[in-house]
Amino acid sequence: MRETLDALAAGEITPAEAESRLKGYATTEAGRFDAARERRRGIPEAILAEGKTPAEAAAMATTAVETTGRAVVTRVDDETAAGIREAIADAEPDATVEHDERARTVVVHGDEFEPPSLDATVAVVTAGTADRAVAGEAATIVREIGADVDRVDDVGVASLLRLVDQLDRLRGADVVVVAAGREGALPTVVAGLVDAPVIALPVASGYGVGGDGEAALYGALQSCTVLSTVNVDAGFVAGAQAGLIARAVDAARES
Amino acid sequence: MRETLDALAAGEITPAEAESRLKGYATTEAGRFDAARERRRGIPEAILAEGKTPAEAAAMATTAVETTGRAVVTRVDDETAAGIREAIADAEPDATVEHDERARTVVVHGDEFEPPSLDATVAVVTAGTADRAVAGEAATIVREIGADVDRVDDVGVASLLRLVDQLDRLRGADVVVVAAGREGALPTVVAGLVDAPVIALPVASGYGVGGDGEAALYGALQSCTVLSTVNVDAGFVAGAQAGLIARAVDAARES
Amino acid sequence: MRETLDALAAGEITPAEAESRLKGYATTEAGRFDAARERRRGIPEAILAEGKTPAEAAAMATTAVETTGRAVVTRVDDETAAGIREAIADAEPDATVEHDERARTVVVHGDEFEPPSLDATVAVVTAGTADRAVAGEAATIVREIGADVDRVDDVGVASLLRLVDQLDRLRGADVVVVAAGREGALPTVVAGLVDAPVIALPVASGYGVGGDGEAALYGALQSCTVLSTVNVDAGFVAGAQAGLIARAVDAARES
Amino acid sequence: MRETLDALAAGEITPAEAESRLKGYATTEAGRFDAARERRRGIPEAILAEGKTPAEAAAMATTAVETTGRAVVTRVDDETAAGIREAIADAEPDATVEHDERARTVVVHGDEFEPPSLDATVAVVTAGTADRAVAGEAATIVREIGADVDRVDDVGVASLLRLVDQLDRLRGADVVVVAAGREGALPTVVAGLVDAPVIALPVASGYGVGGDGEAALYGALQSCTVLSTVNVDAGFVAGAQAGLIARAVDAARES
Amino acid sequence: MRETLDALAAGEITPAEAESRLKGYATTEAGRFDAARERRRGIPEAILAEGKTPAEAAAMATTAVETTGRAVVTRVDDETAAGIREAIADAEPDATVEHDERARTVVVHGDEFEPPSLDATVAVVTAGTADRAVAGEAATIVREIGADVDRVDDVGVASLLRLVDQLDRLRGADVVVVAAGREGALPTVVAGLVDAPVIALPVASGYGVGGDGEAALYGALQSCTVLSTVNVDAGFVAGAQAGLIARAVDAARES
Amino acid sequence: MRETLDALAAGEITPAEAESRLKGYATTEAGRFDAARERRRGIPEAILAEGKTPAEAAAMATTAVETTGRAVVTRVDDETAAGIREAIADAEPDATVEHDERARTVVVHGDEFEPPSLDATVAVVTAGTADRAVAGEAATIVREIGADVDRVDDVGVASLLRLVDQLDRLRGADVVVVAAGREGALPTVVAGLVDAPVIALPVASGYGVGGDGEAALYGALQSCTVLSTVNVDAGFVAGAQAGLIARAVDAARES
Amino acid sequence: MRETLDALAAGEITPAEAESRLKGYATTEAGRFDAARERRRGIPEAILAEGKTPAEAAAMATTAVETTGRAVVTRVDDETAAGIREAIADAEPDATVEHDERARTVVVHGDEFEPPSLDATVAVVTAGTADRAVAGEAATIVREIGADVDRVDDVGVASLLRLVDQLDRLRGADVVVVAAGREGALPTVVAGLVDAPVIALPVASGYGVGGDGEAALYGALQSCTVLSTVNVDAGFVAGAQAGLIARAVDAARES
Amino acid sequence: MRETLDALAAGEITPAEAESRLKGYATTEAGRFDAARERRRGIPEAILAEGKTPAEAAAMATTAVETTGRAVVTRVDDETAAGIREAIADAEPDATVEHDERARTVVVHGDEFEPPSLDATVAVVTAGTADRAVAGEAATIVREIGADVDRVDDVGVASLLRLVDQLDRLRGADVVVVAAGREGALPTVVAGLVDAPVIALPVASGYGVGGDGEAALYGALQSCTVLSTVNVDAGFVAGAQAGLIARAVDAARES
Repeated sequence: MRETLDALAAGEITPAEAESRLKGYATTEAGRFDAARERRRGIPEAILAEGKTPAEAAAMATTAVETTGRAVVTRVDDETAAGIREAIADAEPDATVEHDERARTVVVHGDEFEPPSLDATVAVVTAGTADRAVAGEAATIVREIGADVDRVDDVGVASLLRLVDQLDRLRGADVVVVAAGREGALPTVVAGLVDAPVIALPVASGYGVGGDGEAALYGALQSCTVLSTVNVDAGFVAGAQAGLIARAVDAARES
Repeated sequence: MRETLDALAAGEITPAEAESRLKGYATTEAGRFDAARERRRGIPEAILAEGKTPAEAAAMATTAVETTGRAVVTRVDDETAAGIREAIADAEPDATVEHDERARTVVVHGDEFEPPSLDATVAVVTAGTADRAVAGEAATIVREIGADVDRVDDVGVASLLRLVDQLDRLRGADVVVVAAGREGALPTVVAGLVDAPVIALPVASGYGVGGDGEAALYGALQSCTVLSTVNVDAGFVAGAQAGLIARAVDAARES
Repeated sequence: MRETLDALAAGEITPAEAESRLKGYATTEAGRFDAARERRRGIPEAILAEGKTPAEAAAMATTAVETTGRAVVTRVDDETAAGIREAIADAEPDATVEHDERARTVVVHGDEFEPPSLDATVAVVTAGTADRAVAGEAATIVREIGADVDRVDDVGVASLLRLVDQLDRLRGADVVVVAAGREGALPTVVAGLVDAPVIALPVASGYGVGGDGEAALYGALQSCTVLSTVNVDAGFVAGAQAGLIARAVDAARES
Repeated sequence: MRETLDALAAGEITPAEAESRLKGYATTEAGRFDAARERRRGIPEAILAEGKTPAEAAAMATTAVETTGRAVVTRVDDETAAGIREAIADAEPDATVEHDERARTVVVHGDEFEPPSLDATVAVVTAGTADRAVAGEAATIVREIGADVDRVDDVGVASLLRLVDQLDRLRGADVVVVAAGREGALPTVVAGLVDAPVIALPVASGYGVGGDGEAALYGALQSCTVLSTVNVDAGFVAGAQAGLIARAVDAARES
Repeated sequence: MRETLDALAAGEITPAEAESRLKGYATTEAGRFDAARERRRGIPEAILAEGKTPAEAAAMATTAVETTGRAVVTRVDDETAAGIREAIADAEPDATVEHDERARTVVVHGDEFEPPSLDATVAVVTAGTADRAVAGEAATIVREIGADVDRVDDVGVASLLRLVDQLDRLRGADVVVVAAGREGALPTVVAGLVDAPVIALPVASGYGVGGDGEAALYGALQSCTVLSTVNVDAGFVAGAQAGLIARAVDAARES
Repeated sequence: MRETLDALAAGEITPAEAESRLKGYATTEAGRFDAARERRRGIPEAILAEGKTPAEAAAMATTAVETTGRAVVTRVDDETAAGIREAIADAEPDATVEHDERARTVVVHGDEFEPPSLDATVAVVTAGTADRAVAGEAATIVREIGADVDRVDDVGVASLLRLVDQLDRLRGADVVVVAAGREGALPTVVAGLVDAPVIALPVASGYGVGGDGEAALYGALQSCTVLSTVNVDAGFVAGAQAGLIARAVDAARES
Repeated sequence: MRETLDALAAGEITPAEAESRLKGYATTEAGRFDAARERRRGIPEAILAEGKTPAEAAAMATTAVETTGRAVVTRVDDETAAGIREAIADAEPDATVEHDERARTVVVHGDEFEPPSLDATVAVVTAGTADRAVAGEAATIVREIGADVDRVDDVGVASLLRLVDQLDRLRGADVVVVAAGREGALPTVVAGLVDAPVIALPVASGYGVGGDGEAALYGALQSCTVLSTVNVDAGFVAGAQAGLIARAVDAARES
Repeated sequence: MRETLDALAAGEITPAEAESRLKGYATTEAGRFDAARERRRGIPEAILAEGKTPAEAAAMATTAVETTGRAVVTRVDDETAAGIREAIADAEPDATVEHDERARTVVVHGDEFEPPSLDATVAVVTAGTADRAVAGEAATIVREIGADVDRVDDVGVASLLRLVDQLDRLRGADVVVVAAGREGALPTVVAGLVDAPVIALPVASGYGVGGDGEAALYGALQSCTVLSTVNVDAGFVAGAQAGLIARAVDAARES
């Protein structure tokens, strides 16, 4: 503890970093940022922008960069992205800010942040256009965990040929995340074609009875093949779970 | 009306047949058998054995044969099948009785019954073993309506290859009924491969959340291809709807 | 393939058409347009405007016309309709654009597009005023597939007389689509009166428990007559399924 | 109170009758029988046999006859009916016992019981065979309240003609109870044809999604005509509510 | 028919009135107004303003006054009320327009309209402030049917004393409508206190699981007393059903 | 730990007691009995007999008596009760065994067990006969925790008078548990009449939509008064929560 | 009554106070304020601002202060808070107004209001940032009832260490309210660690299936420890129930 | 193909093995056994005994041993286990048969079957006794895939201490399967403590609302930590998914 306090007194670290080291998390007006959890499990703590004002999201992103060197923000609209960009420009002028509009994510890397790099590949697959946002969120998380991402898009079961065309890429991955809405048949079909673990990511499309991703989730739970699932639109969770498996594979390859 | 009464007086027809001609349906202790509906729409009135005693089912089957020349009984267990066989042997010794144990159907044709014959084919497809009973019920109804049945079994999406192997048969049908439980992906995949109308027949397999056919039905309702559906385990309805389409095609071919 | 590339090089076809021929679909910023599917099954690929900006919908409509000679857009509001009209006026000045405000559909036919024509009739029936939008979507699709549409409106079961008045028209159709919300009794009543296949189209009206079309869908699934159903408000699917049956009938008549 | 105690001491009334007069209800091992409620609202307190042993049901029936001169038992199987018959033969040898097997009701009238008689008619309507048990329970209650019952059976909407044939009888009733399972369209159709108040009585038939009467109840709640409903299989409640209306009409006629 | 056409030709009736007499209903751009139904069952056809533009609602109200002498509009906001007032001032300057803001209803009586008057009383009861709008809609309909309305407000079960204070008024009514949201206990408690038929009117208040009136509706369906129910917020239906009973009582009193 | 092992070696304690002291719980073939939890929170660990064979339940009961001096078994049928009685007679001949048939509980007190005694009263209230089993389970637990139980039975809201008669008893309790099924209105009415905390205990009675206690639970969650609830039929939890409050009150009185 | 009227005539009390004394509640345009209930059970009547205009909420708050010396308003947005502040400044210039923005509550104390003070502590615990608003509402109510509040924030189960750190505070409370959304595991974990009664307060966070607090509520109902629950987001109810227990403990301590 | 036919002709392989090599699966009366799938993905094809007669299960087990050298049967009761044992004794006298009664699995290894062996460990964790059957099924599958299984039992969240005691074992695993019913809090707590991927396995315990595993599944879907889930009671799927991850880790370690 002394070390941290010395560093703070010497201005080498920010108060947020000091708080984070001492308590395991840093506090802002808008909530708490849990740096310890990120260190512990290797999964970046994502800041959910939905339900926060642009200012709140920006404050938490700044705190995240100050304490862990990085910020990952999800469900970001354009106004919030601009707010984050501005706040980071003030607080961390040398940081890089990447906004993926379709995935609705913003990733900030501090000047000295060294991104992790894993020897493992995660395929992120979509059935159609409507699945891309959620799949993009998953892909962003996988990348930040350090694994390679192989995007295979628009291979919905209504046109099997396109899926079969991509079989080699699907089979080359260590883990496969399959995002699909509507009737959600794609995760089952993919899991019947590859040997790697498949994680279903149901997407909230569709309407009427079984809409909003319910049919897709039920389909994953009832799949006649082997796969596990996350909740509807839980792109972050799917990406992070895939990342944990990729980390395990990478660690085994290292050994 | 006079004609019917004359025939009854002359012993040429049974009282049940007379009642059926006059009122449009015949009554038994166990309920009412609706001969008029059968004549009107060309779909045999099925007798649902479930919830009836063997004696009640047998009585209704006998009445059906007496009034329309035929009886179709669904959801039949072995005891009920034996009861029907016995009752028919008494009342209509020259009738034929066929019991399909897997489909749980009994079909009785009176001595002089002339089965209809349509120039149309209905493919009845199953994903796996658990779907065969319900598919069998559908197939029985299709046959009784007079269409050819082409059974394509065990082509679930977990093994796409087997499905692709049967593509020519699927494409040769005028209508396709696809029975599938669990996640119910097969109707969607089939509808993406054929040009004919596809009717989804969700099957009550599976367990946990979305089980008992719910996921399969939701999948049909949310399908990203074009198809219509019937309720879970509604083999009779799926077969009859396919039969109505087959009749329309047959009539057009005739013309 | 060479042929396509030659045509492109010669300026005879657009790049979108070339991509569509080579890959089976064309891509725009707003998503992918699946021309191959349209060619394969004879059902126009509909562009769902809901959830897209007017510009995105217009871009996809333009691509559709370029690759298949036609665009069918559903769930269109006035702003989007105007956007499409403008974009088409630029890109395809000789094309015709029809906007059905009640059905919320826009149909564009390129200059040289030859609409299909089937020798088959689909009756599209509504119970009340609230069902007309969804029924209109179904009717638009049926027309684009080439069948004749016979609209029978406002024949809800609360006034049986009006329904009975239209019996001849109902019985004259090869297929019947019945749109009804609230308690959804009409499809069952109609299926009891006609011989043709009936497709229920539940409509999201009503409020409280069972509202938003749930009661109507459940009613279709539990119908004591023979019919199949599509999901709530799935006007496109109902129309397309009716169109597939009409195509089968037409083909049989041709033969 | 003194009067009751004198009567008890003189053996003119049973202890159960005395308890009933003093406390408003009588107690047995199997539960409490609420005589006061019966006196207050004119609706016989029904004893629900389901979930009770034959001995318990018989004991309560005996108590009911002792305190109110009558017992109405619902959901009775054959064994329980026999048990009641035996117990009543012992305790009230001059009482009459009627067991309606289809309605699953047992009605006991003590020797001196004078059944009420109302100048009002309740039509009890069924769609099909499966609705008769529940409708029978309703009819039993209506009769015990004293109104005339007019049973109109097997007029389901799949065969409108039969319904139309019975229009005069339906229009002759002061109240109409309509029992229907499956899609439950009949209450709506009837309410569109008559002027009297209609009470829907959904029946737990059907299977799959919306089965067990759910679709029928939702249909009643969403009806596009005016009617009120009771819960699925609530034959007693429907009959009693109809009886309350009949009592109001009868009282008005008397005045 | 000739008579109607003569009257139209002579300018004695409007085209809408003529259409209404000939077809049983009149049509406007916004939908169909069913005058025949009103005449048949004595219940005014209500125009549901929700989902219509002010202009559409006003047009239908005008048509209603022209064909039946009266318009009843429900779920009216202030803008729509103003629109109706204006349209009626133009078309029917001598008509009276009453807007009940809390009940969200507008009632228009044409110059020569003679409101019905029944010798019967309907009590309309509310548990709390949140139930008044829906109860008001019911009360408006009852009044238009011609029965007396006795409003008993704010007698929720959390303060039994207030309920007991109003017992005489409750017992003086021929029918009782009880509007209650949240846990919906009031209809059951009232039905235990009165002899007249009780109609539960669940109200969409509350939040969390069972909110939006679901708990209140379930409570009515499961009530341990005798009552029937309508759907959540179905003020019109509850009022109309109460009105039908009041009409029956009035007719009996007349006789 | 040494002390325990010495006692075991000296035969002063059983192996189960020793295991329980060392690990905090004792193991049997049928499962684990958690003695430590009982000591920690003062709530007896109940053994749920449902789903266990009589022999398994008896073995766990014996272990419970050996380690804590007491066993409380819930959801006991007669065969299991006999099995427990026999096993206890063998293992702990001086223990007392009480079987409450209606509450379906068995309570065993070892020879030297000193039951706790609290200066606090819990009222356990039922609406009707069907609620007594679940209420009895709650009462058993309250008694074993040491509080006085005041049972107030058959005060359902359909007869308010009986409830009002018991007001003094209800108001004399420190905590009130209210068991009610069907529409579950009683907890709300009671909570409007007393000052003590009320715990709703929904009971799985009723049928149709909202049956099996769902309406009663929703009613508790939506109550317009202040109360908390437990799950349907959770008699043990309601009793134990009431017991925890009684313990807090008793401790405060002691201080 | 005379006394009240004299005081009113003498201008010593307001008409609202007089009405409140005579009828038990005061009426405003926006609804009724139930002063009697507050006096009876010691729980302040909260005014739910949601669904009211700022003017309506302000009027009711003013009435509350006039009749009970205090107003507690929940679900307040900034505009409403300002409206209340202004109205109170006019009507009760010496009153204090406290607006807790996070908890969305406004509390007004009249000049002479003497807040109650109990010798009892309620711990109010949150799992994360998203639970603070609802927990704050509970804490406000507890404070107004007079108990001490101990807030323990951000101790969600994903980081057990932080929870364990706060064990002494949790164990020091007489009652514990645990607010948690998402999977809602915290109430169960806390109830396994403390001896005091625990009240679960599920929070409407989360998305997809089980979102909006449903999973958290189900988790509380299914908890393997002893606790009772309130509905999702029912901060007021949880606080008031905790307050009732605190009052019981305080009263016992006093005695 | 020739090779297979030669071997069959020479009696070196059974017809089932031949069919399996040629078609990818073998057929029996009771259904189809999919040997190819087992070879492809390394997961043994499990035979679900539930819903099959002992004879059918035994026939399929025999076929499985003949074609793949192994049979894994799940949901086995004692009678079926005996049937399998007998059938195998006849057909494959040198095979070993292991029946895990608690896990309800039977595993048969043919004489020459060489079980796979992976350098990877899967922890299988249970919250309580009721979770052991489902966890046992998962453990059996993991073992058959070749990974080491570390069982950590009875560490439910109601007693955190026991969980913390096992932390080293949990952290030593490459994958963790956590089986929990009731409120299902354990997977979330475990995932907060370990770095490896966690798979939730909800168990169908509990009663009332959210029972039968629904609350546990919702809790997994809503978890505030990172994990994926399988359906309720899907022990096979959880074990197989864990096995796929273990295979990936093992393969990486090998490389």
